[in-house]
Amino acid sequence: MPFHFLHRVKQQNPLVHCITNIVVTNFSANGLLALGASPFMSTMHEEAEDIQQFANGLLINIGTITQTDVQAMFTAAKAANAAGVPVVLDPVGVGATRYRRHITTQLLQQIQFAVIRGNISEIAFLAGEESRGKGVDAGETQGDNAQIAKTAAKKYRCVVAVSGETDVISDGERIIKIHNGTTLLPKVTGTGCLLGAVIAAFVGVAEKDQNLQACVEACLAYAVAGELAAKGLQQEVGTFAVKFIDQLAALTPDLINQYARVSYA
Amino acid sequence: MPFHFLHRVKQQNPLVHCITNIVVTNFSANGLLALGASPFMSTMHEEAEDIQQFANGLLINIGTITQTDVQAMFTAAKAANAAGVPVVLDPVGVGATRYRRHITTQLLQQIQFAVIRGNISEIAFLAGEESRGKGVDAGETQGDNAQIAKTAAKKYRCVVAVSGETDVISDGERIIKIHNGTTLLPKVTGTGCLLGAVIAAFVGVAEKDQNLQACVEACLAYAVAGELAAKGLQQEVGTFAVKFIDQLAALTPDLINQYARVSYA
Amino acid sequence: MPFHFLHRVKQQNPLVHCITNIVVTNFSANGLLALGASPFMSTMHEEAEDIQQFANGLLINIGTITQTDVQAMFTAAKAANAAGVPVVLDPVGVGATRYRRHITTQLLQQIQFAVIRGNISEIAFLAGEESRGKGVDAGETQGDNAQIAKTAAKKYRCVVAVSGETDVISDGERIIKIHNGTTLLPKVTGTGCLLGAVIAAFVGVAEKDQNLQACVEACLAYAVAGELAAKGLQQEVGTFAVKFIDQLAALTPDLINQYARVSYA
Repeated sequence: MPFHFLHRVKQQNPLVHCITNIVVTNFSANGLLALGASPFMSTMHEEAEDIQQFANGLLINIGTITQTDVQAMFTAAKAANAAGVPVVLDPVGVGATRYRRHITTQLLQQIQFAVIRGNISEIAFLAGEESRGKGVDAGETQGDNAQIAKTAAKKYRCVVAVSGETDVISDGERIIKIHNGTTLLPKVTGTGCLLGAVIAAFVGVAEKDQNLQACVEACLAYAVAGELAAKGLQQEVGTFAVKFIDQLAALTPDLINQYARVSYA
Repeated sequence: MPFHFLHRVKQQNPLVHCITNIVVTNFSANGLLALGASPFMSTMHEEAEDIQQFANGLLINIGTITQTDVQAMFTAAKAANAAGVPVVLDPVGVGATRYRRHITTQLLQQIQFAVIRGNISEIAFLAGEESRGKGVDAGETQGDNAQIAKTAAKKYRCVVAVSGETDVISDGERIIKIHNGTTLLPKVTGTGCLLGAVIAAFVGVAEKDQNLQACVEACLAYAVAGELAAKGLQQEVGTFAVKFIDQLAALTPDLINQYARVSYA
Repeated sequence: MPFHFLHRVKQQNPLVHCITNIVVTNFSANGLLALGASPFMSTMHEEAEDIQQFANGLLINIGTITQTDVQAMFTAAKAANAAGVPVVLDPVGVGATRYRRHITTQLLQQIQFAVIRGNISEIAFLAGEESRGKGVDAGETQGDNAQIAKTAAKKYRCVVAVSGETDVISDGERIIKIHNGTTLLPKVTGTGCLLGAVIAAFVGVAEKDQNLQACVEACLAYAVAGELAAKGLQQEVGTFAVKFIDQLAALTPDLINQYARVSYA
């Protein structure tokens, strides 16, 4: 499998505008910097429109949203849609409260997303499936993850990435599964959120019709970095978080190819 | 000493709703995840009531509070009181400014807390004693820490935990002292704040009449993790913060029993 | 070169009030604690004035600013000016958007800063030079860094520190260059922001006519800590960030003297 986009991220240093939650700002910025991208972590609606004139990608993450954040999200995302900047949605804990459902529904009605990334509980909720998520962490679902990803992708006319033990990515037609990763990733807060930002960096250096491939490469690079960082560790989650940033900086296409376990349905 | 609650935290993964300050969100979430709890870091008042329907514990930390945060705190804490979800207060720097005193006084009038956790300057202030705190860090006090903890616990009809070289916990009658810990803990920002969240996790899996024991176990587990993380370190506070998260993940009742130095007055 | 201010920071534990961005709060507080200073990370305008009664230094960093933050910045900085507390400005990404330019212009009109710290794109913008910054990261400039620092220092009647491969510090007359540092520092988010806070700690323990020397010592101590932390590392930016905090805690005047490479123009 040839990898196009990691190299481009390192060459072009895409500027990723992250409107994300207050828990993960530092980790997200450091992860993007490690990969070679340029984080712009503004939540100010006063400049949300201006930023789309030089941004390569925009991340909308609803993890913790004040009314000002919501205003910034809509302003930024509409300007990004107008300027052709790809927008990634991370609907953190969307099923958990009425307010998150309300904001997410409005976002999905008014914004065209390039990619939606979430855990299975979140994506199942968007797809209209029953799920049993607990707060912002993934629960179990009745349906098949691949089918849920496909349904959501069709419904919102975009690429959908479901993160989990096996990542599933679909554009509504094709389904790609990534079998890399580590059980330590979900034990570090913000690893899902940073992946959303990384996807924005990868689609930010891709052509519009390459979003599926760019998203697959982002998820794969991320899972391989996790796998490598976890080597030799048992449950040392503090150390893992540090080594994970190290590995994001050390990633090369060759390294990814060596470890990649991807299947196409 | 039998330990009941660490095991329950790991088994039941209590959801801890943290309305906490912007300095410690990431560290608090990672500490809770390491222990086996499930952090929910929302400061949105729009969902503050909803969350109490599935939360096991609520932390109110006044370290950095916008007007929206204050609104969220009162809404969440009143709903938690109504739903029987235990609420922990961390009155960060309460003596330092009029605004912190004002908000804390209102909280103490309107909310029934299960546990109040602070350094000696903060608790002495709540107890009505003279103290010489400096900003958000602990200063010296005239009185006896144990007496101050007992006075505050009686006054607010709850468990009070005073963090320091020796931790003192009281329910207004009994006094328990924990002699574990390390001088490195106060050199990492947010270690007090994370302890408040950990206490919320422990009382979140306890019965209502077990708050004292749950709080003692939380403080003891925390201090032992600090002690183990500090082994072999001099002043490497960056490394210590990472190893401390590792140790929170590695804790077992046996390990705690092996190191526990607890005295009952 | 004799070092006066690191020792004083460790002895006097200056309280540094940081009104800074949501990406770097944790890292900034931990860096200040490691050095021996006492961080006070409040963004509440309700207490912004009170804090200047006991603060030793104030940092204004515009990285992410809500309307409440802006209010807190002006209230705090005016009270600091009145109380004689030195104020440091970090004009993060000032050239990137109209809103940042607007806020920064207002700050420079209404507040007397002791030190302004930024990358060359930011300082060139303030000096009135052309620059090609990208978002919040430094770009290239046409002019000479030393001349730009000097021009900005004259214009705003304060000390100006330009961070880069070589740091340049000027009070409008003298120019001092620091050749220490590491390419890993700009790969960790918030290293510029933390330096602003560290400068506030150093000028916070200096006399008013010692701001240039205090700022030089702060930048030098910081660059040497970076250099020492990078020893043996290639591109492990996660590990570097941890070791950098360790080194800030380990710094001594002797260690700095041993590594210092400073030139005076």
